[in-house]
Amino acid sequence: MTSGLSSADFAIRLDTTADETEAVLEKLLSDAPLPDEIARPRRLTDAMRYSSLGGGKRLRPFLVVESSAVFGVPREAALLAGAALECIHCYSLIHDDLPAMDNSDLRRGRPTLHKTTDDATAILAGDGLLTLAFDIITRDEVHDDPAVRLLLTRALARAAGIGGMVGGQLLDLAGEGRFGDRGPVDVARVQQMKTGALLRFGCIAGALLGQASQKDYQALDAYGRALGEAFQIADDLLDVESDAAALGKPTGADAALGKTTFVTQLGIDGAKKRVRDLLAKADEALSVFGSRGDVLRAAAHFVANRKN
Amino acid sequence: MTSGLSSADFAIRLDTTADETEAVLEKLLSDAPLPDEIARPRRLTDAMRYSSLGGGKRLRPFLVVESSAVFGVPREAALLAGAALECIHCYSLIHDDLPAMDNSDLRRGRPTLHKTTDDATAILAGDGLLTLAFDIITRDEVHDDPAVRLLLTRALARAAGIGGMVGGQLLDLAGEGRFGDRGPVDVARVQQMKTGALLRFGCIAGALLGQASQKDYQALDAYGRALGEAFQIADDLLDVESDAAALGKPTGADAALGKTTFVTQLGIDGAKKRVRDLLAKADEALSVFGSRGDVLRAAAHFVANRKN
Repeated sequence: MTSGLSSADFAIRLDTTADETEAVLEKLLSDAPLPDEIARPRRLTDAMRYSSLGGGKRLRPFLVVESSAVFGVPREAALLAGAALECIHCYSLIHDDLPAMDNSDLRRGRPTLHKTTDDATAILAGDGLLTLAFDIITRDEVHDDPAVRLLLTRALARAAGIGGMVGGQLLDLAGEGRFGDRGPVDVARVQQMKTGALLRFGCIAGALLGQASQKDYQALDAYGRALGEAFQIADDLLDVESDAAALGKPTGADAALGKTTFVTQLGIDGAKKRVRDLLAKADEALSVFGSRGDVLRAAAHFVANRKN
Repeated sequence: MTSGLSSADFAIRLDTTADETEAVLEKLLSDAPLPDEIARPRRLTDAMRYSSLGGGKRLRPFLVVESSAVFGVPREAALLAGAALECIHCYSLIHDDLPAMDNSDLRRGRPTLHKTTDDATAILAGDGLLTLAFDIITRDEVHDDPAVRLLLTRALARAAGIGGMVGGQLLDLAGEGRFGDRGPVDVARVQQMKTGALLRFGCIAGALLGQASQKDYQALDAYGRALGEAFQIADDLLDVESDAAALGKPTGADAALGKTTFVTQLGIDGAKKRVRDLLAKADEALSVFGSRGDVLRAAAHFVANRKN
C-alpha cells in the first residue's frame, strides 16, 4: 500500500464510520412521523430497516465522510449526507433483487427483502428509502448554506437518476439480453452509470460540502471515477475467483448469464493490470492533497483488493 | 358553483395549464444527458414518456400553478415545480399498476407501462421519474432563493415518502388483506397519505414559492386537505357509479376487493353530503384571499364533481 495508513488502521477507521452510519440510519428509520407527516406504517419502516441496518461496509458513507474530512467539514454533517447516499444504495439493492429484475434470493448472507416479505412491500420499501434520501440531504444539519445543500441534492439526484444509477441498471439488464438482442455491451459505460455514479458522488460530496476550489473538486472527481472503475473490476473478479460463503451471495452469476464484464473483456490478468493502473490514477489525483489524502488513498487500495 | 368563474372558463384554464405542463415535461424527458450525467438510455426515457406524456388532467400541476398565482409567483417557475410533482404522481401510478401491487392492465384508457414493456422497465421508469422530480425541483429556475427551493424540496419528499404517499399505498394494500388479516381500516388516514399528501403539496407549493404569511399558508393547507378528501370521496363514488369507458379504467374494483372506502363507510348519500361539507370548508379557507381565490374555489368544485 502506497499510503501512510496501515491496513489495520484503515480497517478500524472503516468500521468506526460504519458503526456511526448505522447509528444515524437507526435514528432516521424510526416509525415516528416527521413534521408534515402522518404516522409511518410500521410494516414499511421494518422493511426499510431490514434492508439498510445490520451490515454492509458502508463504503459510500465512508467516502463522503473521508472526502469531507479533507476540507474540515464537521463529521456529523458528513455522516448525515452519507446516510442519505446509503439510503439510495440500499433502495437500489432492494429493487435490483426483485424477481422482475435480478431475481436474487440472497444478499449479505441473508434472504433478500422480497423473500422475507413480498414483492409489494419490497417495491414500496425501496421507493420509501429513495424518497427519504432527499428528505435527509436537504436538512439544515447537512450545511448552514442552503445553496450548498441544493448543489448536493441535485448532484445526488443526477447520480441516482436515469443518466446515472437507474439508467445503468437498465443498460445492465439490456446487456443480459433481457429486452431482446443484447447487441454490443459498453462495459465501461454500464459501470460508470450503475455503480460508478454513486461512488463518485461519495467522493465529490466532500468537495461540495467543503466548498472546495475547482481544482480540488476535479481532483476528487478524477479520484472517484478511478475508484469506481476499480471497484467494479474487483467485483467482476470476485464473481469469478471468490466463493459464495466469502461473498455472502452466489458467485459465477455473470458467467451463468453469459454476461460481458471487465473480466470477459480484458481477461483475468488484463483486469488485474487495469486495476493497478486505476490505483496509480487515484493516487495521482490525490497528490494535490498531500497527507490529507492518505485515507482516501487507502480506500482505493481497499476497494481494489477487497475479498467481498 | 359559488365562485366567480364559470365552469367553461375553468375548463379552458385547466386545459391550458395541462398543455403547458405537457410541454415542460416533454422538454424534461428528452434523452439528452444533463450536466453530470452520462447519456440517458432511450428505452428508459421512452418508457417514462409513455407514462407521463399525452394525457391526464394535470390536476396537481394545476394546483401548484394556481396556488402560486395567488401570490404572483412567475408562471414558468410554478410550471416547473408542477412538473416535478407530476413526475412523482406518474411514478406512483406506474409502480401501483405493477402485477406485484394492484396488477392493473389499463390506465387512462391505454395499456399500463408494464403491459407494453415489462416489469423491470416499469420499475426502473418509476424510479427514474421519482428521482427526476428531485432534480427538477432543485433547479435555479424554480426560485431565486435557495432556501425557498430547499423548503419546497423537503416538503415534496415528505409528501411523497413513507409518512405520505408511499406509506398510504402500503396501508391501502394492507386494507385489502394483502399482508394477512386486514383488521380495521382507517379510510381517512389512507386517503390523507395515499392521495391527499400530493394534492395538499400542490396547494401549499404556491404559499412556499410566494413566501406567504403563516396565515395564508395555513389557509392553503386547510383548503388542500379539504380538496384532497373531496377528491378521494369523488373517486370512491365514481368507482360505484361510473362506467369503464367514461373512467378510462375498470370500475367496481373496490367492491370486487371487498374494500372499505368512504362510500362503504358513509353510504352513497352520506358520501355526497360529506363532499358538500368539504366544499364549504374549502370555500371558507379561501375566503381570506377574496377574488384571488376564485380559481382554486372552482378547482375544488371541479374535483368534487368530476366524471373521471
